Amino acid sequence: MAIPNIHSWQINLEGPITDYFESIFSIGNGYIGIRGYSLQTPKTKLQEHAIFRAGFFEPVKPGITDMVQLPDVLGMIVQGYRQESVTQSLDLRQGVLTQRWQAEGLTVSAERMVSMADKQLICVRMTLRSEKDQLVTVQVSMNDQVANLPVHDDQMINETETVRLLETVSHTSNALKMCAVHSGRMIQFIQTVLISGEPVSESTLRLKLKTGEPVTVEKRVRVLFDGESANAVDTDPWEAHAKTWEALWQDCDIELDADEEIQGALRWNIFQMLCNNAADDSRVSIGARGLTHGRYKGNTFWDTDIFLLPFYCWHRPKAAQNLMQYRVDLLPEAKKLAKKQNLDGARYPWMCAVDGDEQCESWDIGFCEVHVTADVAYALERMLEITGTPMTEDMRQLLADTAHYWKSRFTWEEEKQQYSSFFVKGPDEYCGAAINNTFTNFMAKHNVELALQYANDLLDEKERKALRFFADHITILYEPENALYQQDELFDRLEPLPVTMVGGEPLYRIICFDRMQRYRALKQADLVQLMVLFPNRFSEKEKCAVWEKYEPLTVHDSSLSFGVHAHLAFQLGLKEKAWDYFMRSLFLDLKDVMHNTGREGVHMASLGATWQALVYGMLGLWAQDGTITAHAQLPDEIRSISLSVWHRGQKHKITATHEQTLIIKEG
Amino acid sequence: MAIPNIHSWQINLEGPITDYFESIFSIGNGYIGIRGYSLQTPKTKLQEHAIFRAGFFEPVKPGITDMVQLPDVLGMIVQGYRQESVTQSLDLRQGVLTQRWQAEGLTVSAERMVSMADKQLICVRMTLRSEKDQLVTVQVSMNDQVANLPVHDDQMINETETVRLLETVSHTSNALKMCAVHSGRMIQFIQTVLISGEPVSESTLRLKLKTGEPVTVEKRVRVLFDGESANAVDTDPWEAHAKTWEALWQDCDIELDADEEIQGALRWNIFQMLCNNAADDSRVSIGARGLTHGRYKGNTFWDTDIFLLPFYCWHRPKAAQNLMQYRVDLLPEAKKLAKKQNLDGARYPWMCAVDGDEQCESWDIGFCEVHVTADVAYALERMLEITGTPMTEDMRQLLADTAHYWKSRFTWEEEKQQYSSFFVKGPDEYCGAAINNTFTNFMAKHNVELALQYANDLLDEKERKALRFFADHITILYEPENALYQQDELFDRLEPLPVTMVGGEPLYRIICFDRMQRYRALKQADLVQLMVLFPNRFSEKEKCAVWEKYEPLTVHDSSLSFGVHAHLAFQLGLKEKAWDYFMRSLFLDLKDVMHNTGREGVHMASLGATWQALVYGMLGLWAQDGTITAHAQLPDEIRSISLSVWHRGQKHKITATHEQTLIIKEG
Repeated sequence: MAIPNIHSWQINLEGPITDYFESIFSIGNGYIGIRGYSLQTPKTKLQEHAIFRAGFFEPVKPGITDMVQLPDVLGMIVQGYRQESVTQSLDLRQGVLTQRWQAEGLTVSAERMVSMADKQLICVRMTLRSEKDQLVTVQVSMNDQVANLPVHDDQMINETETVRLLETVSHTSNALKMCAVHSGRMIQFIQTVLISGEPVSESTLRLKLKTGEPVTVEKRVRVLFDGESANAVDTDPWEAHAKTWEALWQDCDIELDADEEIQGALRWNIFQMLCNNAADDSRVSIGARGLTHGRYKGNTFWDTDIFLLPFYCWHRPKAAQNLMQYRVDLLPEAKKLAKKQNLDGARYPWMCAVDGDEQCESWDIGFCEVHVTADVAYALERMLEITGTPMTEDMRQLLADTAHYWKSRFTWEEEKQQYSSFFVKGPDEYCGAAINNTFTNFMAKHNVELALQYANDLLDEKERKALRFFADHITILYEPENALYQQDELFDRLEPLPVTMVGGEPLYRIICFDRMQRYRALKQADLVQLMVLFPNRFSEKEKCAVWEKYEPLTVHDSSLSFGVHAHLAFQLGLKEKAWDYFMRSLFLDLKDVMHNTGREGVHMASLGATWQALVYGMLGLWAQDGTITAHAQLPDEIRSISLSVWHRGQKHKITATHEQTLIIKEG
Repeated sequence: MAIPNIHSWQINLEGPITDYFESIFSIGNGYIGIRGYSLQTPKTKLQEHAIFRAGFFEPVKPGITDMVQLPDVLGMIVQGYRQESVTQSLDLRQGVLTQRWQAEGLTVSAERMVSMADKQLICVRMTLRSEKDQLVTVQVSMNDQVANLPVHDDQMINETETVRLLETVSHTSNALKMCAVHSGRMIQFIQTVLISGEPVSESTLRLKLKTGEPVTVEKRVRVLFDGESANAVDTDPWEAHAKTWEALWQDCDIELDADEEIQGALRWNIFQMLCNNAADDSRVSIGARGLTHGRYKGNTFWDTDIFLLPFYCWHRPKAAQNLMQYRVDLLPEAKKLAKKQNLDGARYPWMCAVDGDEQCESWDIGFCEVHVTADVAYALERMLEITGTPMTEDMRQLLADTAHYWKSRFTWEEEKQQYSSFFVKGPDEYCGAAINNTFTNFMAKHNVELALQYANDLLDEKERKALRFFADHITILYEPENALYQQDELFDRLEPLPVTMVGGEPLYRIICFDRMQRYRALKQADLVQLMVLFPNRFSEKEKCAVWEKYEPLTVHDSSLSFGVHAHLAFQLGLKEKAWDYFMRSLFLDLKDVMHNTGREGVHMASLGATWQALVYGMLGLWAQDGTITAHAQLPDEIRSISLSVWHRGQKHKITATHEQTLIIKEG
């Protein structure tokens, strides 16, 4: 398998595009995302050449939506040539993907960008050079033949039926208007074609190339969704785009004194977090694969709140506010969902599409993996703490309503005088339907405590008392003699995983998902996850006990696992383990560690987990009670780290070496 | 709501057909089933006017099949009249459904039957009488416009998308040939039309009716599935059909000295068991709704092995042999399924279509409701015991392979020195994913013991020892001090069901399915079910303890519940309870007790449970060690019972009154 060459600001590849490279060469501006497909390779299936628009979902079956795949409007193909010497280069600094090829004396370079300056704009710029005078035909088009291939929740089931979600309303050579078949929402694509800077109206361009004289064909496509009006046009959209990226990097870059590959990979991680976040729009969140693939139907999970949010809190506080506002605005839907499940208060869905309803179809996940609601409350507190955003009435309501939810979700056991959670799943999605999963119970307790702290005035005396009693009686499985938290009541009774099974492919690919449930094996960090969420709440001894028991039993079949393990390992000073996990998280997609980057897209949560492993784990950054602290423990492989963060409206420069950690106010 | 008038051999209805009546007026011969739709009401949706052919399934999505709905080939409509004074009458003795109506001096009577004598034949005979001379046009046709509307497993989700599973290959006025879109299996319908006994070739019949002179239009449709050749034609198919029914009733009737309504309802229950069983064909089983509706996609559940099989064992031993042979023949598929789930031996699917693969899509049911495998082994032993069928090598292999499955499905707990079942569901489908469900564990143990008893020679020394040890160490939750079996480990920890919730609609219709899982409430008989399966294995005290604890907690949200409760209540002499449950089971569909007979079809298992409540519960019939015993405890409402049963090739007449029970060899 070809692998990319990773430079400090560039990802290069020699050779043609595969599914895997399509994923890692995805670009976007948070509103529009485009997979890194080859312009010169014709689309042969309706679901290929994927482009997405954040927030555009349509029903595909009763109650279930899919993120709508847009038509391939990039179309710009040099006719009659067979590509040779194909290379690609993703410029992280400027947000431009360039695909190059040669054939019969012709050299073609096609740059593309999704504008960070003008969120409606996609540009493709093709430069043709010839070693001889020759006539070349370039076809510029927008292809309205498109369909979704909805992805089954179960990773082992391949759906085969495509679904048409868009109908063409009108289609001229320079404008395409399509309508969503169920909602009737409109999306328009308006194309402008320029040859060497001059607009032309044709779509079949016959170019007389002269030896050594380059000709540039450019295409600008404006995407207008759901009644948007067009933005003002930049004179030079490429420059405006580059400038915006420059500003973004000033806020978001992390400079390492380390191997170039590590530096470049880290920047690619950050790049993708920027490409998949609609920073100014609170009506959309980030899907599990962002805008890079239709996997998980574009839905938002706890991935956003727990894994991704910290990056935005520290580097793009406005984006962090919007991501939380998205949850706050869906509170009415979360209340409806709780009611639908005969519970009180507000319950956030495990898989959340744009309408806020539950999109997960299985009982054991959709109904049992309930911790997401407490994750939202946790994330809200963190965002407020880091960014200094004042708590609004709606946010207080969120805390109160989610607390009510938890009380109704637990079962009071009179005999044991405890509240228990039955049939829940923690982050670890193996080990069946657990009883009193500690991660879930602890997060629920934290959620209720936040409500009692911040939303006291929204509770009457009786509610306050009941919630206080509830929080105090939530079962937390803990062995004081070993300072050890227990994952759940059943975990230790499960069968040990045969040693021969560990290593290689994710186990769910080789062992039946149901069989896995009865092994004493964790899919991903569960209590380890809890330890990193509350770095000051657990003692070193408790963290070590959790690590020692659970880390060896974790098979890391989730992309959410490596970064979290790196995170805690850095904090515990387990240098070798920490670096090993960090490498797997850092290169998860770039080196296709899970063997699914091609068929699934970019694992968004892993980007955030990587960032946290570095900034929270390695650098020890934390915000508490209005104070920012950091205490770096750098691994041997990294000589220094330098980054800027925002804390409560104030920019800080943090630099760390093996000798010292400095936090300096900027500006 | 209109209700039917139930006579001892007839179900009558005044008024037009609704979905509910379509269900209860379903007729069939086990190969072909036809819902009782009105001939005079045009089909307006593709999925209306349902006809099914046993064993005809087609894929509707990856891994999932649906029972193919056949085109409406009954078509015979009197044109231009608006029906008045509509009545229907189902003759149970002769297996004929008659629909009558009048309009403008015209009286029309349309009889239909699905021939029990010639399994390929459907006949419709319309008799027209007029009070005046008039010209009447009758259109005779076969409508090839048909589609399936696959029913979602989740009863609360209404699928809306129809799927075309048949394509027309050729269509003339008297022959229709259709091809299944995926498998390519062919089905042909060949129509013969007769006017007053004389064949005609037209399909638009213009009849000159004379005052008081009846004219009969008859249509015979031969259904040839999958390359079948046509049977020899009977001179009078109606007579041949009636004679076959007469013979069937000689074997299967139960005569009661009781209210006519009870007698008629009991016969309707038996009638439907006969209509939905392809007695001579071991390649098909009985779906949960037989051939009366597409609910559950035509799949076979434990309903057949545990609920229906006893009826066939005692009345139609050949049919019982074929029903078990169906399971035996699918042993290779059951082995594949076990392997697919990384388990040993053979595991029968929860929902079984014709190919023997698992059709249930959910984890908590499809993967957790595992007792079906032991139910098959139990049923096999019962069938052999009652019918005296010799055990074949294949059957022994079934017992051995299912035993191996169980050993691999349980978890050995070293500390407790016990084998435990994690994440299982017993018959009670509420109460979450249970730990050590006693029904499941007991049935598994019984399965292993059967293997050790009958399939010893197929096991090596090591396997025998391991299976013996396994059977001896399966956890059975039992409180000796109270003689009480416990449903599972978690049951008593669940929240009590609020009293206000009991009664009325099934709870899953008003309370979220997930919420129900955390209430201490049973959907249906669980340990009560176990008690009736082993009448001699549990003491009276144990049965009473189970009844006293679990009966009050059972909400009977399954049609499988009433009959089983009646069964045990009769045995325990709980006269009032027994009769109450028996009535609900006996009239479950006829009086639409679950409010879903219309949208779901006939609940096959309830027919069998009703029969068992009466014959096993009330009459005390049992077969053990080659001996037949009975000891009736008749309720006040029934003065005597008389029936014939087959036991090991010998027919016995059983008569019971309040004074005595007689078993007399016949013939």
